[in-house]
Amino acid sequence: MNSFGNVFRVSVFGESHGPSIGVTIDGCPPGTAIKTEDFIPGLQRRQGGSRGTTSRREPDLPEILSGVFNGYATGAPVTIIARNKDTDSSAYNDFIDVPRPGHADYTARIKYSGFADHRGGGHFSGRITWGLVIAGVIARKICDGAEINAEVTSVGGSEDIESAVSKALAENDSVGGIIECKVKNPPAGLGEPFFYSFESALSHLVFSIPAIRGIEFGSGFAAAAMKGSVHNDPFVNEEGKTSSNNAGGINGGITNGNEIVFRVAVKPTSSTGVPQKTFNFRTKQMQTLKVGGRHDTCIALRMPVIIEAVTAIAMADLIMIHRGISGNRTP
Amino acid sequence: MNSFGNVFRVSVFGESHGPSIGVTIDGCPPGTAIKTEDFIPGLQRRQGGSRGTTSRREPDLPEILSGVFNGYATGAPVTIIARNKDTDSSAYNDFIDVPRPGHADYTARIKYSGFADHRGGGHFSGRITWGLVIAGVIARKICDGAEINAEVTSVGGSEDIESAVSKALAENDSVGGIIECKVKNPPAGLGEPFFYSFESALSHLVFSIPAIRGIEFGSGFAAAAMKGSVHNDPFVNEEGKTSSNNAGGINGGITNGNEIVFRVAVKPTSSTGVPQKTFNFRTKQMQTLKVGGRHDTCIALRMPVIIEAVTAIAMADLIMIHRGISGNRTP
Amino acid sequence: MNSFGNVFRVSVFGESHGPSIGVTIDGCPPGTAIKTEDFIPGLQRRQGGSRGTTSRREPDLPEILSGVFNGYATGAPVTIIARNKDTDSSAYNDFIDVPRPGHADYTARIKYSGFADHRGGGHFSGRITWGLVIAGVIARKICDGAEINAEVTSVGGSEDIESAVSKALAENDSVGGIIECKVKNPPAGLGEPFFYSFESALSHLVFSIPAIRGIEFGSGFAAAAMKGSVHNDPFVNEEGKTSSNNAGGINGGITNGNEIVFRVAVKPTSSTGVPQKTFNFRTKQMQTLKVGGRHDTCIALRMPVIIEAVTAIAMADLIMIHRGISGNRTP
Amino acid sequence: MNSFGNVFRVSVFGESHGPSIGVTIDGCPPGTAIKTEDFIPGLQRRQGGSRGTTSRREPDLPEILSGVFNGYATGAPVTIIARNKDTDSSAYNDFIDVPRPGHADYTARIKYSGFADHRGGGHFSGRITWGLVIAGVIARKICDGAEINAEVTSVGGSEDIESAVSKALAENDSVGGIIECKVKNPPAGLGEPFFYSFESALSHLVFSIPAIRGIEFGSGFAAAAMKGSVHNDPFVNEEGKTSSNNAGGINGGITNGNEIVFRVAVKPTSSTGVPQKTFNFRTKQMQTLKVGGRHDTCIALRMPVIIEAVTAIAMADLIMIHRGISGNRTP
Repeated sequence: MNSFGNVFRVSVFGESHGPSIGVTIDGCPPGTAIKTEDFIPGLQRRQGGSRGTTSRREPDLPEILSGVFNGYATGAPVTIIARNKDTDSSAYNDFIDVPRPGHADYTARIKYSGFADHRGGGHFSGRITWGLVIAGVIARKICDGAEINAEVTSVGGSEDIESAVSKALAENDSVGGIIECKVKNPPAGLGEPFFYSFESALSHLVFSIPAIRGIEFGSGFAAAAMKGSVHNDPFVNEEGKTSSNNAGGINGGITNGNEIVFRVAVKPTSSTGVPQKTFNFRTKQMQTLKVGGRHDTCIALRMPVIIEAVTAIAMADLIMIHRGISGNRTP
Repeated sequence: MNSFGNVFRVSVFGESHGPSIGVTIDGCPPGTAIKTEDFIPGLQRRQGGSRGTTSRREPDLPEILSGVFNGYATGAPVTIIARNKDTDSSAYNDFIDVPRPGHADYTARIKYSGFADHRGGGHFSGRITWGLVIAGVIARKICDGAEINAEVTSVGGSEDIESAVSKALAENDSVGGIIECKVKNPPAGLGEPFFYSFESALSHLVFSIPAIRGIEFGSGFAAAAMKGSVHNDPFVNEEGKTSSNNAGGINGGITNGNEIVFRVAVKPTSSTGVPQKTFNFRTKQMQTLKVGGRHDTCIALRMPVIIEAVTAIAMADLIMIHRGISGNRTP
Repeated sequence: MNSFGNVFRVSVFGESHGPSIGVTIDGCPPGTAIKTEDFIPGLQRRQGGSRGTTSRREPDLPEILSGVFNGYATGAPVTIIARNKDTDSSAYNDFIDVPRPGHADYTARIKYSGFADHRGGGHFSGRITWGLVIAGVIARKICDGAEINAEVTSVGGSEDIESAVSKALAENDSVGGIIECKVKNPPAGLGEPFFYSFESALSHLVFSIPAIRGIEFGSGFAAAAMKGSVHNDPFVNEEGKTSSNNAGGINGGITNGNEIVFRVAVKPTSSTGVPQKTFNFRTKQMQTLKVGGRHDTCIALRMPVIIEAVTAIAMADLIMIHRGISGNRTP
Repeated sequence: MNSFGNVFRVSVFGESHGPSIGVTIDGCPPGTAIKTEDFIPGLQRRQGGSRGTTSRREPDLPEILSGVFNGYATGAPVTIIARNKDTDSSAYNDFIDVPRPGHADYTARIKYSGFADHRGGGHFSGRITWGLVIAGVIARKICDGAEINAEVTSVGGSEDIESAVSKALAENDSVGGIIECKVKNPPAGLGEPFFYSFESALSHLVFSIPAIRGIEFGSGFAAAAMKGSVHNDPFVNEEGKTSSNNAGGINGGITNGNEIVFRVAVKPTSSTGVPQKTFNFRTKQMQTLKVGGRHDTCIALRMPVIIEAVTAIAMADLIMIHRGISGNRTP
């Protein structure tokens, strides 16, 4: 089930401490320009480097295995990987019997009957989002003209993001955040009426990213407290422009051509320097666990590029479906 | 694209004022008991009838067209429909050129190049959720043992739901609401690590329901303001029980066996008695629009049964995928 | 699993003696003209009426339940059904314990643990191909310009079809046949390189039709006895025309613009007037079975319109996928 | 579209002269034993080495990139690749303008608007079947108990295979062949009634293999010349054993537990030492083309292991679907 999309189809694979992480993109239009350099800015944004993210490292350079020839997509599946460096995984052995709270140690054990690769979180690692960023770079080339921008708007409940991070760092703790994403100049007509509405496709992808707790479109949860006469967005011209945008650019599951707006809630990084209680499945007793190593204080800070990537992936697939069904009859 | 699910697959069809609405369920286990009476309580809940919903009518009775024999699912696709009554659709002709704010009139026109059935909202009508309730009744039989309950927790920002509705009624306006859904005794191990996480599957379905603006799991948007040491849920026993439940019963996209908890935000009904501005595509001018007829003051009040239904649908498919891959090796 | 197609998606449902048979077509382009009369010629061809088919009856008239408005597809799912007439099913009760050779009585019992609707073959009945013919009529409108023609080329091993049928009728037996299908003016570029090659898509659909035993493209099985220098089709002009057509219009899984040619083998009707041996699961003994009623002497005679239908369905989906990926960049 | 399967899902990628070829298997049950050595016998069989195949080389050794830990599948996607060796691709430049008869040079150019990787056939190369063999080795472990065996039964129309190959070699030509595949002890109940019948799934996969011209099950094309009274297979005991097997072990699209039997026709290798005519798209004239290099005289000789592999892949997916829907209720 590890793929998404009907025509533009993305699959990810790999484990944090295994040989490799990677992504396959099927349905990439032949002639799409793809160069290794295209991926670097996105990968660097994902790496973070500011305070509150793990210290800056060089991003994992993409190695194109298939589907690209002379700098252009051939039309065949595009597979791109990054090699994992040799890593000391011994620290993770403890977590087999003593699952870290907030992590997937326990559910991986349950779901995969003890066969999961537990090292560094295995396939559940945030490291796997590398492939989403790669696919997003290609997807953006298909969403020609749409400008997708995501940014952190609050951390730990505060819009003074810098000081919220400093505070958490000082406490040796982690903290959550909110990301807002806007798409300018989106095509109108994207999304299917029921099971593949624009919000369905996008939320499906967003909740594939580890650490997401919620998503809201337009006025979002605030809409629940609004009156209809206030919430409805009046159309004001022939292009379908609306004078307000409580719908976040979407009516009936379909983009209306206005700016698409949504926000996602990111939980605090599960790994924190503060000792925690958990259950030891070997001793059958509660114990205190201290998760060592360097961790992001605020994982939300590294998310905007990933949120932009999945937005582009959802849009690329919806564009292709629409084009497939309606052909040249552009809205 | 109007189907959902990999093994337990649900498709809906129909238009509000067309001949029929319906649903097909593929992958229904042979031997599942299915009787027409099974659907009545859910359909009645969906019909509403309390203040704030349109006046009580008899629910649309299901007509089983296929896949059921002698009261049991045969294993072949189950199709169930309801006939639409003769309805006067003339009122909707106006909305072809004068799209109602908040509705899909405009996007349907754009997406379908003017061929959409506009009468009563056509395929975009909330009426289509009838099929979700039907599928949900069957899906619940597969989620044996799990108790799914959803309820409205606030309306118009207030937990005094009754008075919030009264206020909106008095103002001839509509109002939004929040629904909380809890699943007791869910199986652990449901959900795939990446593109078909539990949250992905569920949010995909929830955003197929008209009028949803947001979804959050566990502590949800509040998690963004929390510290990791507080947000993490300590495991306390061998069954994977946690002492808090900020994760809403899900770690790494997979159910951990604790109660599943999520909330959805429902926007105010788009149809309201208050006159509104919109653009007239014929006269090319702004105009005032008054949407007549009877409408729900608070559409959220009719939603809990639909939210429960899509939860059961998502769980049924994830249970079948898990069983398909892992066989008898139950977690 | 009872649906086919990625963008143009067809599902069938129904049982032979249940309330209804039907089909849902998702991804039908809005604006496609659809009228009830369009289906009549194809349904009449499917009914047969010549010697060797069951005696002529009026075809089951289609009832459009959704997705069509004012004579055009709206863009929403199109569901079309036919009601089954009241039928005496009592004759079929015998076959629960005494499975008819060649029929699906035994496998249905095994697969569905005894819950299958056995009356008239239930969901396994050839009657379900009604929905394929319906979908084929719509699919042809999308394969604009391609002329699809199938015909019976031999019956019982003889090209004198009439006398082969007479002979079988005289013997109270049934007989098989070969159907050849040709597509003139097909678009070039249809089919995906690996898992969705033109032959893959078409054979997938052809083997969904009951009673098919084989399929071959171009020179087919004869190719196994040929030399490469003879089998290869030389290109002779800029349009990709070839001077021979052993490839049946397909190279590397993709149509090359030459006529598409394939043949299918149809087994003799399983129901025959000749008494046969089978196992009685109640008495645990072999017994002689005489299948009564009227049956097609040669089911192949009713197949050409169904073969044409599935060819159009496969082509419609492949056209839409190609258009979705490559957009206006027509080959 | 380059993936197959609903629960056990296989994707292939790579080009003949690109950096790598590979395969991803999603839905592999956790705990499945997977070692590099497991793949060697199958890969060696695919390499051939007898007369009529290209001279024996070492097989491309598999490199496991993901999804395997300590010798067992983890439950996450399994990706396995082989690196391509440095190859001189210059010979293939000619074929851009002068497409080889029988090859995909022309259709690749048309479909991918000139962006296809033409070197060594690119993604259309028989080399890509390496990934099918890999996936087949894993799939077999899931089809526990079923014995799948394929063999060449005729070459160039003769059952004296050796002399048929010698004759073709002497003529510097290529020749086709027939492969028969039998599955002993298959599970009963595999296959869906309509669009995912056993024959549909298997033929879908078989026609993904380059050079296949036809497939037939049981009595196959010969059934078209048979009478029903002869063709029907009488059941003879409680296990559903039949005294003949014209159905090839399949009734109504579903396996009946008897031996599964099918045959495929393989065309002669398109590359042959005999000079051929084709069209030159640069000079706009017909010309003679001589395809150099070493080629298989009879590609059918290398096919049995690939046919076995796709049979296992189809069965694995159908087993998982059945298990997913019907759970422990084994037939």
